[in-house]
Amino acid sequence: MHLLKLNCPDAVGLLARITGFIAASGGNLLDVSQYTDPVSRWFFTRLAFTGGMVEDDFARFEQDTRALADSMNAEWTLRRSDRPVRTVILVSKQDHCLVDLLWRWRSHELNIDLPLVLSNHDAVRPLVEREGIRFEKIDFSTDKSAAFEQLASRLRAEGAELVILARFMQILPEALCREFAGKIINIHHSFLPAFVGANPYRRAFERGVKLIGATCHYATENLDQGPIIEQEVSRVEHYHEPDDLIRLGRDCERLALARGVRFHVEDRVLAHGSRAIVFRD
Amino acid sequence: MHLLKLNCPDAVGLLARITGFIAASGGNLLDVSQYTDPVSRWFFTRLAFTGGMVEDDFARFEQDTRALADSMNAEWTLRRSDRPVRTVILVSKQDHCLVDLLWRWRSHELNIDLPLVLSNHDAVRPLVEREGIRFEKIDFSTDKSAAFEQLASRLRAEGAELVILARFMQILPEALCREFAGKIINIHHSFLPAFVGANPYRRAFERGVKLIGATCHYATENLDQGPIIEQEVSRVEHYHEPDDLIRLGRDCERLALARGVRFHVEDRVLAHGSRAIVFRD
Amino acid sequence: MHLLKLNCPDAVGLLARITGFIAASGGNLLDVSQYTDPVSRWFFTRLAFTGGMVEDDFARFEQDTRALADSMNAEWTLRRSDRPVRTVILVSKQDHCLVDLLWRWRSHELNIDLPLVLSNHDAVRPLVEREGIRFEKIDFSTDKSAAFEQLASRLRAEGAELVILARFMQILPEALCREFAGKIINIHHSFLPAFVGANPYRRAFERGVKLIGATCHYATENLDQGPIIEQEVSRVEHYHEPDDLIRLGRDCERLALARGVRFHVEDRVLAHGSRAIVFRD
Amino acid sequence: MHLLKLNCPDAVGLLARITGFIAASGGNLLDVSQYTDPVSRWFFTRLAFTGGMVEDDFARFEQDTRALADSMNAEWTLRRSDRPVRTVILVSKQDHCLVDLLWRWRSHELNIDLPLVLSNHDAVRPLVEREGIRFEKIDFSTDKSAAFEQLASRLRAEGAELVILARFMQILPEALCREFAGKIINIHHSFLPAFVGANPYRRAFERGVKLIGATCHYATENLDQGPIIEQEVSRVEHYHEPDDLIRLGRDCERLALARGVRFHVEDRVLAHGSRAIVFRD
Repeated sequence: MHLLKLNCPDAVGLLARITGFIAASGGNLLDVSQYTDPVSRWFFTRLAFTGGMVEDDFARFEQDTRALADSMNAEWTLRRSDRPVRTVILVSKQDHCLVDLLWRWRSHELNIDLPLVLSNHDAVRPLVEREGIRFEKIDFSTDKSAAFEQLASRLRAEGAELVILARFMQILPEALCREFAGKIINIHHSFLPAFVGANPYRRAFERGVKLIGATCHYATENLDQGPIIEQEVSRVEHYHEPDDLIRLGRDCERLALARGVRFHVEDRVLAHGSRAIVFRD
Repeated sequence: MHLLKLNCPDAVGLLARITGFIAASGGNLLDVSQYTDPVSRWFFTRLAFTGGMVEDDFARFEQDTRALADSMNAEWTLRRSDRPVRTVILVSKQDHCLVDLLWRWRSHELNIDLPLVLSNHDAVRPLVEREGIRFEKIDFSTDKSAAFEQLASRLRAEGAELVILARFMQILPEALCREFAGKIINIHHSFLPAFVGANPYRRAFERGVKLIGATCHYATENLDQGPIIEQEVSRVEHYHEPDDLIRLGRDCERLALARGVRFHVEDRVLAHGSRAIVFRD
Repeated sequence: MHLLKLNCPDAVGLLARITGFIAASGGNLLDVSQYTDPVSRWFFTRLAFTGGMVEDDFARFEQDTRALADSMNAEWTLRRSDRPVRTVILVSKQDHCLVDLLWRWRSHELNIDLPLVLSNHDAVRPLVEREGIRFEKIDFSTDKSAAFEQLASRLRAEGAELVILARFMQILPEALCREFAGKIINIHHSFLPAFVGANPYRRAFERGVKLIGATCHYATENLDQGPIIEQEVSRVEHYHEPDDLIRLGRDCERLALARGVRFHVEDRVLAHGSRAIVFRD
Repeated sequence: MHLLKLNCPDAVGLLARITGFIAASGGNLLDVSQYTDPVSRWFFTRLAFTGGMVEDDFARFEQDTRALADSMNAEWTLRRSDRPVRTVILVSKQDHCLVDLLWRWRSHELNIDLPLVLSNHDAVRPLVEREGIRFEKIDFSTDKSAAFEQLASRLRAEGAELVILARFMQILPEALCREFAGKIINIHHSFLPAFVGANPYRRAFERGVKLIGATCHYATENLDQGPIIEQEVSRVEHYHEPDDLIRLGRDCERLALARGVRFHVEDRVLAHGSRAIVFRD
C-alpha cells in the first residue's frame, strides 16, 4: 500500500484530477480522506492505494506525481506504508513515555526505526540499551548552546525523519525547531492551552480542576503553541493530591503521545498554521 | 450544498469516475469520505459539493448520476443538504428522549420536519402539542395487530422518511421493519450486545457493571440486532441503585439518539448487513 | 433521610464524635463521606442518616448539632433530604441549559423549587411561562447598576437559596457575589482555566484544540476563578468549525451544569478556598 | 498509615463504634468511606488512619479490632498501607498487560512484591528475567490437571496474596478459584457481560459495535462472571478491522487491569455476592 498526502490552495476538480491520475496508473484506492478549510480555502487530502504503476515503477510514478502536484502548487509526500519512519527519541529522567514507546516499537504497533535515544541524563540508559538501541547522553549542564549543536548534528547524522520529545525537559532553540519543522512531536503534561509552561499538575491541583490532561503537539519556536495532534483527559477528585495528578497524568501522556506519533507516522497529520488536520484511524 | 451517498461492489477507478463526473459538471467538492470494506470488497462514499449543474439543473444532474450509478450497480441517494427529512416520532410514556429531540428540532440543530408524534399513551400529549406538533394516540391495548396497521398507514400518509423510536415500548412487527428498512432508528437502553431485551438497567445493577450505556441502531426484524449507529456510556459506582442507573442512563440515551439521528439526516450512515458505516461529523 | 454537612479544622476523633452523636440520638447512617485535606489540615464530612431524634424532634436535634459543631469551630448545614432547594435561574438568550434544567425539574430529577426565572431579554419567556413558572425581564441596557440592585432585591424577596447562571451573559458585581457566596452556580463554556473570558469556542477553534469543554463553578468576585464543581469535555476534529464547537459544547454545558447543580442541592459540595470538595454520587 | 476494611450485617451505630474505637486508641482518621447496601442491608467500610496504638503496639490493636469485629459478625482486614502485597502474575504469550504491570511495579506505582511470573509458554521469559524476577514455565500441553496442581503448589509456596491473570489463556479449575477466592484478578478483553468467552474482538467487529472495552474482575468458578472491579472502553469506527480492535483493546486492557489491581492492593475493594464495592481513589 502507498500513501499520498497533499495540500494546496483549493480549486474545482482537484480530487478528481488526483484520483483520476491514480486510476489511470492502475492504482486502486483503499481509503481516501479529503477536507477543505472553508476559511483559508485550503485543500487537504490523504489517499491510500495499491497496485499499478506505483508498485511496478515507483520512480516514474513519483515523477508523474510531482508534475501533478506542481501544477496545483501543492506540498506533498508519497511513501510506501510499510517503510518505517526513522525516529530519534529525546528524554530526560522520567521513563513512562519512553517505556511505552519502546513497547509499541518492539511489538510493531508503531511503524518506526529507532536507532538512537538521546538524553541529558543517564537515568534511562539501561532501559534503552537492553532493547538493543543505542543510548547517548549529551551534557546540557555546562554549555547549553554547544549541547544543542551536538544534538542537532546527531539528528542530522542519523537522518532523523521524526524526533519525539518523550518528556525531554529542555526548551529547544528556535533554529532547531525550524530545521526540523513538522518533524518534532512533543508531549506536554497539561490540557493545552491550560497550564502552559512549568509544573502544570501542581497548578491544576491549586486551581481545583476536575479533569487533567495531556497534549501531543508539534514543537515550534513558540513554547507549547505548536499545532495540536491529540489530547487526552482523566477525571480527578478533590482527594487527589499533586502526586496523584502526576500519576494519573502519566497515563494520559502515554496515550496521547502514542496516538499522536501513530497518526504522524501513518501520514495522517497535515499541519497548517496553528492547526493540525488529523485524518484519524 | 448537495450530498451524494453511494455504495456498490468495489472496482478500480470508482472514486475517480465519481469525482470526475462532479468536476465535469462544474461542482466543487467540500468534503469527501470513502471507505472500502476489505472483507466484502464493498465501496462506500459520501460527497458534499456545491456549484455547477446540480444547482442549475437538478433534474438533469440527477439523471446523469443515475446513469453513472447504474453502471456501477450502486445504491445511491442525492439530496440538497438543507432539505429537511420528514420525520415521525414514536414514544410511550417516558419523555426524556422526546423532549431532547423537540429542543434540537426547535433550535434547528436537527434538520428535520416533524409533522406528527404517535404514542400508545396520552402521557406526552401536552409536551408535543405545545410545540405546535400534531399528537395522535393509537390504542395498542386491545388489538395490537390493528394498531400496527393504523401506525403503518399513518406513517405512509405522512410520507415519513424517518421514524424515530424515542423509547417506544412496543416490538415492531416484521412487515413494518421491512417496509421502512433503513428508516427506523431505535434507542436501546443498554450497551448492546449486553442486556438485549427487557429491564437492562436492573440486570446491569445485578451484574455489578462499572459502566452502563445506550445504543442507537436501525430497527430490523431481529430485536436489538440492527446495525449500530452510535453508542454512549456512563461510569457507575457501587452506590448507584437501579433508579440511579435509569437516571444516568437517560443522559446516555438522549446523547446517543440525538447523535445517531443527526448522522442519519446528514446522510452520513450507510448500513451494510449487520454493520453501519458512519462517516462521522 | 437527613443530611449533615460539616467542615472545620482537623483534630483527632472528630468523626467518632459526630457518628457517636448520631448513634446516641438513634440515627442510622446510610452513607458517610469524610475527607481531610492534608495541606490545610481541614476536615470535611457529609453524613446521610435516618431515624431517631432528628425525625422525632428536629428542633432539639438541630440544637444539639449546633452545640457539637460549635465545639469544633465548624461550619455546618442540616437538612431533610426531600426538602427542595429554593432556586432562581438567571438566563440571557440561549436556552439550552434552561430547557435542560426545566426538564430535570419537571421530572423531579433535581430537588429544587423554581418560583422564578430572571433574564435581561425576553427571548425565553414563553419557554418559562408554559411551565407555570414566573418570568421577569430586568432591563440591563440602560442602568446596569440599578438593574443589579433590582436583581438582588428579587433574589432576596424570593428567599433564593440557590442562583443558577444558565448562560447569563452579564458579569455579576462583587457585592452580589459576596452576598450570595457559595450560592451562585455558573456554567462557563470552556474547559477552565483554558479560555477564561469571552468567545471561548472561537478561541478554541483558532488554537486547534482536539477537546473542548465546559466548567460548572461557584461564581465569586473573580471572573471564572471560583471553585470548580464539575467539568465535561467533548472530542472535536479539524473539520469542526466554530459553529460546530458551539453545538458540541452545548451538550457539555448542559451535562456539567446539571451534574453540578445536582451535587449542590444534595449537599455534596463543600467549597474551601479556590477548591471544591465534591462527594460525588 | 493503616487500613481497616470491614463488612458485616448493618445495624445502628456501627460506624460510631468503629471510629470511636480508633479515636480511643489515639488514631487520627485521614480518609473514611462507608456504604450500606439498601437491598441486602449490608455494611461496608474502609478507614485510613494514623497514630496511636496501631503504631505503638500493632498486635494489641489487632486483638482489640478482632474483638470489635467479632461482636459485629464482621469480615475484616487490617494492614499497614506501605506493606507490599505478595503477588504472582500468570501470563501466556501476549505481553502488553505484563509489560505495563512490570513498569508500574518498577516505578513503585503499584505497592506489590513480585517474586514470580508463571506462564504456559516461554515467550515472555526474557521480559521478566531482565527485571530480576523469577520466571517459570509450566507445561499445560500434555496433562492440564497436573499443570494446575503444580501451579497451585507454586502459589502456595510463594505465599501469594494476589494472583494476576495478565492475559493467561487457560480456564482455571474450580478448586483453584475457591482456594484463592477474592485473590485472583483477571482481565477479560471485552466489555462484560457482552462477549463472554473466546474471540471477543472478532465478535465485536462482526456485530459492528461503536465502543469496545475491557473488564477487570475477580475470577470465580463461573467463567467471566466474577465481581467486576473496573471497566474501560474505547471508541471504534467502521474502518477498524479486527486487528485494529485488538490493538485499541490492548490499551483498554492495560488501563482497566492496572486500576483494578491498584484498587485491590490499596484495600479499596470489597466483593459481595456478584458485585464489588469499590471505594475508588
